[in-house]
Amino acid sequence: MTQKPVAINDDRLLTRINSLAEMERKDDGSCSRLALTDADRRGRDQVIQWMHEAGLTVRIDQIGNITGSRPGRSAVRPVMTGSHIDTVVNGGRYDGIYGVIAGLEVLQSLRDADQVTERPLAVTVFTNEEGVRFQPDMMGSLVYSGGLTLEEALNAKAIDGARVGDELKRIGYAGAERCGEPVPHAFIELHIEQGPILDMECGLLGAVENLQGISWQEVTIRGVSNHAGTTPMQLRHDAGYCAARIGVFVRELATRMGGLQVGTVGSVRLTPNLINVIPNQAVVSVDLRNTNDALLAEAEQAFAASLETLAQEESVTIETLGLVRTQPVIFDLTVLHAIEAVAEELGLPIRRMTSGAGHDAQMMARICPTAMIFVPSVGGISHNPREFTQARHLQLGADALLHTMLRLAAI
Amino acid sequence: MTQKPVAINDDRLLTRINSLAEMERKDDGSCSRLALTDADRRGRDQVIQWMHEAGLTVRIDQIGNITGSRPGRSAVRPVMTGSHIDTVVNGGRYDGIYGVIAGLEVLQSLRDADQVTERPLAVTVFTNEEGVRFQPDMMGSLVYSGGLTLEEALNAKAIDGARVGDELKRIGYAGAERCGEPVPHAFIELHIEQGPILDMECGLLGAVENLQGISWQEVTIRGVSNHAGTTPMQLRHDAGYCAARIGVFVRELATRMGGLQVGTVGSVRLTPNLINVIPNQAVVSVDLRNTNDALLAEAEQAFAASLETLAQEESVTIETLGLVRTQPVIFDLTVLHAIEAVAEELGLPIRRMTSGAGHDAQMMARICPTAMIFVPSVGGISHNPREFTQARHLQLGADALLHTMLRLAAI
Repeated sequence: MTQKPVAINDDRLLTRINSLAEMERKDDGSCSRLALTDADRRGRDQVIQWMHEAGLTVRIDQIGNITGSRPGRSAVRPVMTGSHIDTVVNGGRYDGIYGVIAGLEVLQSLRDADQVTERPLAVTVFTNEEGVRFQPDMMGSLVYSGGLTLEEALNAKAIDGARVGDELKRIGYAGAERCGEPVPHAFIELHIEQGPILDMECGLLGAVENLQGISWQEVTIRGVSNHAGTTPMQLRHDAGYCAARIGVFVRELATRMGGLQVGTVGSVRLTPNLINVIPNQAVVSVDLRNTNDALLAEAEQAFAASLETLAQEESVTIETLGLVRTQPVIFDLTVLHAIEAVAEELGLPIRRMTSGAGHDAQMMARICPTAMIFVPSVGGISHNPREFTQARHLQLGADALLHTMLRLAAI
Repeated sequence: MTQKPVAINDDRLLTRINSLAEMERKDDGSCSRLALTDADRRGRDQVIQWMHEAGLTVRIDQIGNITGSRPGRSAVRPVMTGSHIDTVVNGGRYDGIYGVIAGLEVLQSLRDADQVTERPLAVTVFTNEEGVRFQPDMMGSLVYSGGLTLEEALNAKAIDGARVGDELKRIGYAGAERCGEPVPHAFIELHIEQGPILDMECGLLGAVENLQGISWQEVTIRGVSNHAGTTPMQLRHDAGYCAARIGVFVRELATRMGGLQVGTVGSVRLTPNLINVIPNQAVVSVDLRNTNDALLAEAEQAFAASLETLAQEESVTIETLGLVRTQPVIFDLTVLHAIEAVAEELGLPIRRMTSGAGHDAQMMARICPTAMIFVPSVGGISHNPREFTQARHLQLGADALLHTMLRLAAI
């Protein structure tokens, strides 16, 4: 008996991605589906309907993660993919959504081809990845992987006062199943890059080998406001100048360290912010990232030392507030090799790369071998209505996911 | 016959300053008397009432400048003092007002002492010095000195749509007299320093020998927005980093040039101004000042060259918009010597200095020998409800003005 060939249904893939975006489409083309809102409920209901169409068994756990499963020949740990369908405010149509729909498509295309894998397969929609409405972000996968207790997660309060547990009940997604099951044999997340590298390199795919550790600080400099014309240079305590020094230092630090160290001052707020007044206060954001935790700590220390020098030189006070500090994640080489072998078989050009953004996969890496596949983002634009990935890349990525899952599910 | 001694009436001086502030006092202690508003009319009416009490002849010209005169023994050009009574929004109680009330006090104290000078004396209240509601600032003195035609000034439109000419009529101050008369023999303006120097030097008086030329530019940098985690350092076109480089360059430029060169970046606005996004736009204000026009031009050129280098290095576009460019003013040595001689006679410690702010005196310097006297501003604070000068310094300044005017009016 000859098996039907397995292939992604390209039209269904693109139609479902668009249809999930169109449900919450705004005038500027953006999509807002904040976690555990009515919009989230509508999106979840739609995904579950598609899971049923694909013949999947649907399981909803106590933090609202939705897993659709397809049995294998053996009752062993499944190969899982997954991502999220919640978005930022005025988000795009691919971030998260693409990975969920492509995972669903992998499982449905196997059913269409009447094929059964050795291991079970599963696709999971994780709750509240974006962390816009409820902190922390990547909440569903964090609970799944045991990094946060269910109780803490359910008690998290939204910026609008709502509680995760209450909102889950309200939208009908406070599931009965235990969190953290099934433990996957392997986890692969497919995602748009949200950066410019693959797009600049003529549309390669990316095999994501690691994820940066992130250090976010808010630095507040307090100096003395004075008249820009009458205050001699040597008598100034200029908080705006200190902000400028920090901007230059962060660039120089990242450039000097080289490798995968990056550093950004994305936000500067001066007070009073007038042309002829020396600023008495500056609030500056500092974003440092590295895939190597020791190097990231080294960058943080060098930065802290530079602030001490600056405070002394300019006779200002400088306070820092730590906002975020995550560890880097190294993905699993076996999964990575499977992705690369599949790309070679399919003739898809691929490169190893680092993820600069956080993803559910980083949490799943705590409990099982994990890696990610990236597809290009045009212009690297994300979290924006202009977020865009070419249909061809969406299809190739889903193809790579399909064959990687098949390979990992064969044994 | 023995002359009565001439002396400033300290109580009257302080009472009138306070009373002019109290008329428009707000809850935060500030005073708002924007040019040609009803508040300005009330202030003008009050000053004219005091001019009448002092026995002065009141003359209102076509741009609304009010001159109170006291005849001398000879019908020659008068020695004139003056300043303004309009304020910024939420201004203090001394900027401008002090010079007007002290001038009035000089003339009234001569009447109290039954003394007549050889030359006539005059005190002028100039229209719209602050330039908050109508551009240009120093409008009344600019028209007085022939730097702006009456017609242009009358047609100036306010930010609220009102026309200077209409507002002058509305508040009853569209005078009939020709602008620019009388041409003074000499002009001396008494003003608070609005800077920290005299206050830091234990309350000296200041003999103002010159006024800085001012160069204001708005610099707009356009780069490319991208993810702060995923964009390698060498692929960035970071408008925020460019703003930081400008902040550091302006400081280094002023420090390297030394002398009286100052430079300030008081305002920075980044877009989108988020912690994890490389800014695609920065709008930066640059304020350069020097008392030497050639050096100021040199600073402007060095700054422009630095922007070219920066644009090339970072592959960004940089546009500059010139906002203000004024020439430095050198005050008259004869008037300056008269001020210094009086200070020596009275035993008042005094130092020569530069004004970093614009004043009506700089316009009057176009048509007659001119200089200024400064009194300390506590903490250098001005254009702010916390603007403060000690009563003792207000009295000493008025004393210095009295005796300088007497000296200049003697011949």
